[in-house]
Amino acid sequence: MDKNVLQKISYGLYVVCSKYNGKENGQIANSVFQVTSEPPTLAISINRSNLTHELITKSKAFTLSILDKQTPMTFVGTFGFKCGRDIDKMDGVNCVISQNDIPIITDHSIAYIEIKVTKNLDVGTHTIFVGDVIDAQMLSDEDPLTYEYYHTIKGGFSPKTAPTYNKEEEVKGKKIQKEERNMEKYVCTVCGYVYDPVKGDPDGGIAPGTPFDEIPDDWVCPVCGAGKEAFELQ
Amino acid sequence: MDKNVLQKISYGLYVVCSKYNGKENGQIANSVFQVTSEPPTLAISINRSNLTHELITKSKAFTLSILDKQTPMTFVGTFGFKCGRDIDKMDGVNCVISQNDIPIITDHSIAYIEIKVTKNLDVGTHTIFVGDVIDAQMLSDEDPLTYEYYHTIKGGFSPKTAPTYNKEEEVKGKKIQKEERNMEKYVCTVCGYVYDPVKGDPDGGIAPGTPFDEIPDDWVCPVCGAGKEAFELQ
Repeated sequence: MDKNVLQKISYGLYVVCSKYNGKENGQIANSVFQVTSEPPTLAISINRSNLTHELITKSKAFTLSILDKQTPMTFVGTFGFKCGRDIDKMDGVNCVISQNDIPIITDHSIAYIEIKVTKNLDVGTHTIFVGDVIDAQMLSDEDPLTYEYYHTIKGGFSPKTAPTYNKEEEVKGKKIQKEERNMEKYVCTVCGYVYDPVKGDPDGGIAPGTPFDEIPDDWVCPVCGAGKEAFELQ
Repeated sequence: MDKNVLQKISYGLYVVCSKYNGKENGQIANSVFQVTSEPPTLAISINRSNLTHELITKSKAFTLSILDKQTPMTFVGTFGFKCGRDIDKMDGVNCVISQNDIPIITDHSIAYIEIKVTKNLDVGTHTIFVGDVIDAQMLSDEDPLTYEYYHTIKGGFSPKTAPTYNKEEEVKGKKIQKEERNMEKYVCTVCGYVYDPVKGDPDGGIAPGTPFDEIPDDWVCPVCGAGKEAFELQ
């Protein structure tokens, strides 16, 4: 079996929010589909260990914001890789309140849908929640973010709790990110000299191919003599 | 509620096949997602009136072929808009046979997945089937066809039995197709003259903007005098 085939299934990327007894949270989801057109109903697969799972189970309601293509990776990172039990993800994020008093995230969202859960199915590590669409509104005419775009163009991958988690993909993705990070340029804030890892600083004893992080702490800017601490990521 | 929001959910396009007691069939589906990564399981939403639904219910197994971006509209039309009770859709289509003796369509497919159904959930007009992935293989490195591409670039829409059926979208889609068809050019098979509806044939009494279908039957080719029946779609 070639598990990479599962990466060829197409998805969008969404923020799912729920709220129960004053506690609210949101998380990234990609496993979302419409199950019937009349009445309009949706299904979503959520990991049982997630706070959002707990809130949906208790409130029987959630909202879905459809993310736009330009959504920054930091936004996906906060809602996809951090836990609402550790931080308040909703802090500083623009929301409106749904008919069922659940936050709807409007930042980076082209549209939202509100769902009232009618059925659920236990599928091991996850639950499939099925519910009626009770509201749906457009917010912009931008293109939706797809998982393909997030993965291929932006270099993102799935967290361990996602239905689509793939260990090989994560290891490969992190390796590429590390390689990319290692080849990032740094600029001297004093004189504007740019340290390029491809070139290194042979006159200063730094071989070509040396990442900025690996330069010794006593190295100084070859132009103005400022210390390594004066450099910033370009 | 703006039902057009539901069109912003991202999907791929797949052919789902099943077989029971010698009877086999395939149909287009877009509502497919992975529900857990360990073990790998998938969910799919299928209309209860479809022959494929009957076969999956009885055999508890199906295959999924992930269509490639270049899949012709006629192929999508056969598997998406025709009924396996009326025609043998598998006739002339290239297949291999799965571990559970179910056809796997390899035409226009970049990969396939075989699923053994473990659970199902009645959701009104449709059933959500959930099952274990027991096999998955790549067939090519082409890009997968997405519903967005099929809809926006190819001008396709969903049949009435699809979870994502949208009457407004269908009416609009058919109107555009009709308009496009009306502006198609026809060529005279005798002399090669091309009738262009944009220009019409003012010398022959046909105003600019007249579709070929609306030209009177006694009209003749302005170049060689052949009758209307000698013309073919260019």
